[in-house]
Amino acid sequence: MDLATVLGVCSAFGLVYIAIAMGSGIGIFIDLPSLMITVGGTLGATMINYPLKEVFGVIKVVQKALFTKTLPVKAIISRFVAFAQKARKEGILALEGEIKNDKDEFLKTGVQLAIDGLEPQEIRDILETEVDFIRSRHQLGAEIFSTMGTFAPALGMIGTLIGLVQMLQNMDDPGKIGPSMAVALITTFYGSIMANIICLPVAGKLRTRSREEVLTKDMTIEGIISLSSGENPRILEQKLKAFVPPNQRK
Amino acid sequence: MDLATVLGVCSAFGLVYIAIAMGSGIGIFIDLPSLMITVGGTLGATMINYPLKEVFGVIKVVQKALFTKTLPVKAIISRFVAFAQKARKEGILALEGEIKNDKDEFLKTGVQLAIDGLEPQEIRDILETEVDFIRSRHQLGAEIFSTMGTFAPALGMIGTLIGLVQMLQNMDDPGKIGPSMAVALITTFYGSIMANIICLPVAGKLRTRSREEVLTKDMTIEGIISLSSGENPRILEQKLKAFVPPNQRK
Amino acid sequence: MDLATVLGVCSAFGLVYIAIAMGSGIGIFIDLPSLMITVGGTLGATMINYPLKEVFGVIKVVQKALFTKTLPVKAIISRFVAFAQKARKEGILALEGEIKNDKDEFLKTGVQLAIDGLEPQEIRDILETEVDFIRSRHQLGAEIFSTMGTFAPALGMIGTLIGLVQMLQNMDDPGKIGPSMAVALITTFYGSIMANIICLPVAGKLRTRSREEVLTKDMTIEGIISLSSGENPRILEQKLKAFVPPNQRK
Amino acid sequence: MDLATVLGVCSAFGLVYIAIAMGSGIGIFIDLPSLMITVGGTLGATMINYPLKEVFGVIKVVQKALFTKTLPVKAIISRFVAFAQKARKEGILALEGEIKNDKDEFLKTGVQLAIDGLEPQEIRDILETEVDFIRSRHQLGAEIFSTMGTFAPALGMIGTLIGLVQMLQNMDDPGKIGPSMAVALITTFYGSIMANIICLPVAGKLRTRSREEVLTKDMTIEGIISLSSGENPRILEQKLKAFVPPNQRK
Amino acid sequence: MDLATVLGVCSAFGLVYIAIAMGSGIGIFIDLPSLMITVGGTLGATMINYPLKEVFGVIKVVQKALFTKTLPVKAIISRFVAFAQKARKEGILALEGEIKNDKDEFLKTGVQLAIDGLEPQEIRDILETEVDFIRSRHQLGAEIFSTMGTFAPALGMIGTLIGLVQMLQNMDDPGKIGPSMAVALITTFYGSIMANIICLPVAGKLRTRSREEVLTKDMTIEGIISLSSGENPRILEQKLKAFVPPNQRK
Repeated sequence: MDLATVLGVCSAFGLVYIAIAMGSGIGIFIDLPSLMITVGGTLGATMINYPLKEVFGVIKVVQKALFTKTLPVKAIISRFVAFAQKARKEGILALEGEIKNDKDEFLKTGVQLAIDGLEPQEIRDILETEVDFIRSRHQLGAEIFSTMGTFAPALGMIGTLIGLVQMLQNMDDPGKIGPSMAVALITTFYGSIMANIICLPVAGKLRTRSREEVLTKDMTIEGIISLSSGENPRILEQKLKAFVPPNQRK
Repeated sequence: MDLATVLGVCSAFGLVYIAIAMGSGIGIFIDLPSLMITVGGTLGATMINYPLKEVFGVIKVVQKALFTKTLPVKAIISRFVAFAQKARKEGILALEGEIKNDKDEFLKTGVQLAIDGLEPQEIRDILETEVDFIRSRHQLGAEIFSTMGTFAPALGMIGTLIGLVQMLQNMDDPGKIGPSMAVALITTFYGSIMANIICLPVAGKLRTRSREEVLTKDMTIEGIISLSSGENPRILEQKLKAFVPPNQRK
Repeated sequence: MDLATVLGVCSAFGLVYIAIAMGSGIGIFIDLPSLMITVGGTLGATMINYPLKEVFGVIKVVQKALFTKTLPVKAIISRFVAFAQKARKEGILALEGEIKNDKDEFLKTGVQLAIDGLEPQEIRDILETEVDFIRSRHQLGAEIFSTMGTFAPALGMIGTLIGLVQMLQNMDDPGKIGPSMAVALITTFYGSIMANIICLPVAGKLRTRSREEVLTKDMTIEGIISLSSGENPRILEQKLKAFVPPNQRK
Repeated sequence: MDLATVLGVCSAFGLVYIAIAMGSGIGIFIDLPSLMITVGGTLGATMINYPLKEVFGVIKVVQKALFTKTLPVKAIISRFVAFAQKARKEGILALEGEIKNDKDEFLKTGVQLAIDGLEPQEIRDILETEVDFIRSRHQLGAEIFSTMGTFAPALGMIGTLIGLVQMLQNMDDPGKIGPSMAVALITTFYGSIMANIICLPVAGKLRTRSREEVLTKDMTIEGIISLSSGENPRILEQKLKAFVPPNQRK
Repeated sequence: MDLATVLGVCSAFGLVYIAIAMGSGIGIFIDLPSLMITVGGTLGATMINYPLKEVFGVIKVVQKALFTKTLPVKAIISRFVAFAQKARKEGILALEGEIKNDKDEFLKTGVQLAIDGLEPQEIRDILETEVDFIRSRHQLGAEIFSTMGTFAPALGMIGTLIGLVQMLQNMDDPGKIGPSMAVALITTFYGSIMANIICLPVAGKLRTRSREEVLTKDMTIEGIISLSSGENPRILEQKLKAFVPPNQRK
């Protein structure tokens, strides 16, 4: 899990917790029916909106986005330069050993295609199709979280309306009005937390990670094409550096 | 009706029901005039917005979207491979028997055009025009539900305003204030439910199903073009697989 | 006035009326100063926003959109087929009598251009320019109503704020608080009705009618071009049918 | 100042004034600190957002938009026809006298370029660059007013929050609660007036005037190009008429 | 720090301060837990949304946007004219001395490339890539501030909900209700200030500065290309003037 997310989750939830603890116990903010209606209702509306497979598939996408580290761009460059030098000296077949135990499936597939001797344009077509599917998977994930982020406050408000109507129907005991209204407001609180500290930031994170991952995939494609065309390691390096901001190139 | 929708509707409405039942009877949430103004008013505003034919036509679109199963992409591929093999051995006319009892009207039309010997480009033009109309029908359906999803909370608020004004004009009996306000809030509750658990998720579902259906239609077109050009079954399979994410191809 | 609009207006306003009548007399919802500030203020803001000519011109556009019937597409097709057959037998000049008493000015202009012997491309340019102006007139109309639909609730809220401030300044007689607040809320009620039952649905209707009218105009252009090129009636029919959804062609 | 704006401002502000005057004196709606925080705060936020030069430059743009009359399109056409006839008879140099005292700087520049004998394409490039700058100046003006229209209600709400917090801290004298809250609401009132009766309509007006002005500038360019190419006055008239809706051409 | 920002910050915060001071001491508006939950929570949500590096990197971007002065366009023009004249007389190598101590790294890099004798197209490619990276860095900065501007009011509302729930649970002492609610509202106040006086205007400022900086960079590129092609100083001046509004050219 990347540091920013850990820090963000800790600070956001931590501060909410501290703010609550300073004024009262956390107990009055825990209410199971409120949780059910906000979280369950939001998931329900989301499941009407998207196919089941995609709603659950999104969990895997989030997991990957939060826990998989994308290789830093500089490491990608130096790696391809090494590949190119090896391919120059020992032939492209020599790369087979290099990639055998690599964890990056995308790189493995691509280099294997180059070793198999496909034309550069064919390799590019195959790999770019795969990148397109990766990108649309990420976008769907971000879209599902954005949708949840719009349903959550609405469901929270529905819960509050339920509580208010029930309270207003039974105003005989004025001493109960306060606590009843407090409970009614808790669903709005849950909806707002769910939207603004979970769903919307995670949707943003997925979009950010998608940009990062697509960038490294694009660099990988460029590198593999360059390998398969047998280009000079120096030229390969130049080409890959065009993906990096000038002030980070040295 | 697909599983996600069933689960979604059940969980969303079920949880709202449970939340209500835990605090009071469901009775105080049922109010006919409130239902009339929210649902009827929303439908009224929608009927001013769209032609009558389209408002009612949308029912059919929704029905189709929720109850018709689109064929899984793999089944489409294996089917076209079988067609191609048969056409290779026995000629394209042999497909006439295969499709006679098929339920997929789009496939039937397309294969028939291929059997009739039209040029591939002509077949593509005819079928793509049809897909365009299907897509715009779906979009119109999604748009109508989105529009209803924006009118419903507004009508709910109008109902609440009516209730509030009436209550405020008659504040002689303080004991009635609570229940009157409870009733006034019920239209807002209905509007919010209607928008966030029905209209907006259904609009989303229509968009999702449209994407799915257009994808299978595009695969069907590609397959029919391939059949009509008498292409090799292996090449046909390759072409159709390009529509499937790489990690689902095996 | 088309049926959907009549039904929509009746059901929306009727239900609001019934909801009001069930709880109290309609009298307490009629307040001239509130009407003045909401409707007048909205019109004022709209007149700052758009030139006077366009604000008043929009009335004509709405009238036309609500009361003019666009010819059904099938009637257009059969009409042009008849024209083409007549032109084939008796020459294009024979159409002069056919169109003399036609109400559709656009059709008359176009056929006259064909009779006058202009080149098909010239006819297309002239007619498409006219369609562009029609479309932009419609869009302006829809835009003005959308704008009014955003100003109306804002003006309603301004009216409510005025009422609230006045009420809060004079809270000596607690018995008057309720009725004063009721009156204050009426402007919000008016603003919401004006936006959600009048302005926004009418803006939507204008957009829908524009799409319909532009479609029939495009079919008319295609038909006139076909006539002026002396094309076979069967080919003309084929061309015009491409504008109709496949499932409505028979 | 054009009539629509005068009417709009009068009716909007007049109706607000009347609505206030009917319920109480205008006095309770005038509160200097509220005005300071709403208007001053909005201007402050806008000045952080845009360079000082542009915020003040916008005043000139608004002034021009409200007080400069754009020439009616028909006058432009007849004027260029007259120019073309004169240029035909007496040579293009004869136009020098015609434009010497003209107030329209854009026209003067353009005709002077034609008299100086520049190539039509060069004239077009120079004048279109100028139109681009005019258009972007208008857009910036409209954007600044839109931005102010979003800041104003926010600042109004900030003012109201300040008033509410102060009131809630001092609730000893119940008789003061009403008036204090009334004063607190006045900033919201100011923010709403500022946004919906001033900023947003003026932003709309700037966009409308920009469209009008750019249209007349485009006609002027077309006319000047036509003059400089020595085209027939009748052809020039035809070309300029293409900018006018067909139903206004006669 | 540019004047507009200073004035804007002073007037916005100053007026808020004065408005507060006129009604009560500033003390009741300072509440550490409220500040923690609003500012800390917003930062937390932002850190979930964006990588840590980018959240902190934005500080540098803002600093640069507020404190670096972009050279006025006229100075850029006269400078390049001087360069071109020198290069004409003494050869392009003579520029090496001119730029040695220049602070504008972009200009230095570009002129050095010209001195090194790269082809104009190569120089353009290299410099435009750099401008693209600068632009996307600015956009990311503006996007982060916009995101914070949407999270801040939401976190403010979450804080207010916490305060309200706690207050409603303990309504035994009516005298405390007012002050408790006052404290609860302070987070909404903070959220609104943070969004509307800090985050959103700064996001706007970054967009404005980005446009300015990209314009000067584009002029610099054009100038360097012109230098490297050995163009006449007068032509270079003409080319650069095309970037300046006509009414500012003299």
